[in-house]
Amino acid sequence: MKIGVLGTGSVGTTLATKLASLGHAVKMGARDAKNEKAAAWAGSAGAQASHGTFADAAAFGEIVFNCTSGAGSLDALAAAGAENLRGKVLVDVANPLDFSHGMPPSLFTGSNDSLGERIQKAFPEARIVKALNTVNANVMVDPGRVPGVSDVFVCGNDAGAKAEVTRILKEWFGWPVVVDLGDITAARGTEAYLLLWLRLWGTFQTPHLNIHVVH
Amino acid sequence: MKIGVLGTGSVGTTLATKLASLGHAVKMGARDAKNEKAAAWAGSAGAQASHGTFADAAAFGEIVFNCTSGAGSLDALAAAGAENLRGKVLVDVANPLDFSHGMPPSLFTGSNDSLGERIQKAFPEARIVKALNTVNANVMVDPGRVPGVSDVFVCGNDAGAKAEVTRILKEWFGWPVVVDLGDITAARGTEAYLLLWLRLWGTFQTPHLNIHVVH
Repeated sequence: MKIGVLGTGSVGTTLATKLASLGHAVKMGARDAKNEKAAAWAGSAGAQASHGTFADAAAFGEIVFNCTSGAGSLDALAAAGAENLRGKVLVDVANPLDFSHGMPPSLFTGSNDSLGERIQKAFPEARIVKALNTVNANVMVDPGRVPGVSDVFVCGNDAGAKAEVTRILKEWFGWPVVVDLGDITAARGTEAYLLLWLRLWGTFQTPHLNIHVVH
Repeated sequence: MKIGVLGTGSVGTTLATKLASLGHAVKMGARDAKNEKAAAWAGSAGAQASHGTFADAAAFGEIVFNCTSGAGSLDALAAAGAENLRGKVLVDVANPLDFSHGMPPSLFTGSNDSLGERIQKAFPEARIVKALNTVNANVMVDPGRVPGVSDVFVCGNDAGAKAEVTRILKEWFGWPVVVDLGDITAARGTEAYLLLWLRLWGTFQTPHLNIHVVH
């Protein structure tokens, strides 16, 4: 499969590396076509790894992962181009973290808003699925980093897109439980959870943690 | 032990009933000394159950539970009286839910603020412990309502108060895991989690759900 990964940070690199290791053709996108981190990743991740601009990566992908920082996501996606995202599944992994008030970060969205919704609204012809934003990058692609069973969540307005992302999470990444929380407004819940996740990180002194829902 | 329970809703009634059933003297407080729900509860919960104003209940309790609605908590605690809360453990179970934008509710606090912090700031001589606000009232006092192991959280600025509440949660209510998230600012995390909890309720069609942290 041809996959576009937008973002060159730890999330983008970790996801891109995992996807390439599974045999997919992955293009990492950055603001600058000559981005050094993207070039270094492409040079180390095998023959099917490549890099380019946000637009190059979005045009390349049959599915696209938004791994840019939350504060930069709308700009990055505008650079990627609505025409390159049209009809595609866009997995939104970003969180609306606001570091301007110091640590731990807060959210730049209110509690009746979310980054996932803002992205869906800005790109109405893309099929946004919010996913994986509730775990650390290493855990995203290797659930076994956390002992026992734990869960990830999907939400979005397109049932087919959610089914495709759920399959990827289960079959490619090995997630035992993928909870469908409903439409994209449920991103309010998974993004707000980051505020608890940050405290759990502080308490347990590791980002390799997660939650399991019991009911 | 003499315990004050502020609030006559399902949370206050459920906690007061459990505490009375354990043999404690419990006074339920309401805005009006003749509140019918409080009177009905006191009439049904045994010889050591009583009711009165918020101030009556706060003065009575060696420990006090804030089970009022989040939007009304600061007013209710003002009516309870700072002098009646001074030096006491005040378990804050309330959530800052805002129903003015429709369902599901949002939060009236921003993500670098919390109701727990507002209460601690307004009542600096009370020893606030945020706890139990992440589960349904029935689950609070009966963790076995949810299958398997799941967790509750405490946070607050007073280590002794947290230790006392942790003991109550474990020994009186039967919680297997009580996670200490740090100072009262961690209420930002446990209150924001409500936005995820509301979505989980919608997904699983039951409020008898909880999370277990794995790390």
